[in-house]
Amino acid sequence: MSEYEVAKHTKVRRIPERGHYDEETVHSIIDAALICHVGFIEDERPFVIPCIHGREGRTLYLHGAKASRLMAESGSGKPLCITFTHVDAIVLARSLFHSSMNYRSVVAFGQGRVLEGDEKMHALEVVAEGLCPGRWDGAREPTEKEMRATSVVAVDIEHAGAKIRDHGVGDDEEDLDGPWWAGLLPVERRILDAIPSPDLRIESTPPEHVQARVGDVL
Amino acid sequence: MSEYEVAKHTKVRRIPERGHYDEETVHSIIDAALICHVGFIEDERPFVIPCIHGREGRTLYLHGAKASRLMAESGSGKPLCITFTHVDAIVLARSLFHSSMNYRSVVAFGQGRVLEGDEKMHALEVVAEGLCPGRWDGAREPTEKEMRATSVVAVDIEHAGAKIRDHGVGDDEEDLDGPWWAGLLPVERRILDAIPSPDLRIESTPPEHVQARVGDVL
Repeated sequence: MSEYEVAKHTKVRRIPERGHYDEETVHSIIDAALICHVGFIEDERPFVIPCIHGREGRTLYLHGAKASRLMAESGSGKPLCITFTHVDAIVLARSLFHSSMNYRSVVAFGQGRVLEGDEKMHALEVVAEGLCPGRWDGAREPTEKEMRATSVVAVDIEHAGAKIRDHGVGDDEEDLDGPWWAGLLPVERRILDAIPSPDLRIESTPPEHVQARVGDVL
Repeated sequence: MSEYEVAKHTKVRRIPERGHYDEETVHSIIDAALICHVGFIEDERPFVIPCIHGREGRTLYLHGAKASRLMAESGSGKPLCITFTHVDAIVLARSLFHSSMNYRSVVAFGQGRVLEGDEKMHALEVVAEGLCPGRWDGAREPTEKEMRATSVVAVDIEHAGAKIRDHGVGDDEEDLDGPWWAGLLPVERRILDAIPSPDLRIESTPPEHVQARVGDVL
């Protein structure tokens, strides 16, 4: 199993058993996420901006309007931190101290480079297919003018680490006889039935590739 | 209606009609979020770390283990960017160019300070009550030893801006007669039925304050 090299800035220091560095774990968390949070530095100030992404191997693709701050900054080669987080449950322990969340997260580091030409078109396909497989063929492809207004940035992941909490309540032994209820409140994110656009001039029933995404739990 | 002062780094530049700076909008997005993403700079590198939060007025409370990087860095007074994002739908336009997401996000800036004593205890109550109202009284309160192991950081929001997309597909007129389906895939995040801890020694039925959180759509 291929692993990301552990670095000082990706090593899970607190509760190290929650840390995972294998590609399978890291990539599954990235791929299940609809968006990521991109961190960069501008004028000595940190920025954290949500962004749609795609992934191929150890490369992340970000895309957005060429005019946006995010695209200008993320494509400039400066260091980026890109984080993906799923919340799976609120953990209600007897003690507030042991109360927590179940979650899956990935923190990835790398530098961005602006893509052009075939690479850029390919990356857009990866992003579209990641959000809704089959969409690349199911939608109108970008025109040259649209491509000029769109920026696509590739980030080769240099270091990445996942952190996962996925178990029940872990209270102290001396609290088990106490009067406090303990348990999980699961949090589910699900894709609901598709809503056809009111201005459709074709059959409103969603095509198979859209229908296939309905009910997905992320 | 009280508004956050708009700054260069919070002004929504792209599609300015999606920008909102009133407290009501900004705070409702913050309060509906189970976690935030905290951005800070360490060794000239950006970090983006997920974190549980609470809010009171224009103050955010972050908490975590004293030993964690996040708490050490966020409490040190350096500039922070704290971002809250909800994804509400995948927007499938006829053209890939107009495909998008419906979302609600807030980007907030400020500096953190470590809380102690009564302020610290109060902030923990705000965080606990934000996640599950009634939990502060429904759980065992922190001991002195637990308080020493926990760090709580307050961030007074200096600037904040919300960005919201919440409408349907916006295709170009010339694409409306095309053969491509268009519409929304709604994304819902919901709190499911509580799962009692298997080691409970009291009645396993969740108490009212836990039950009240079940079914909440975030």
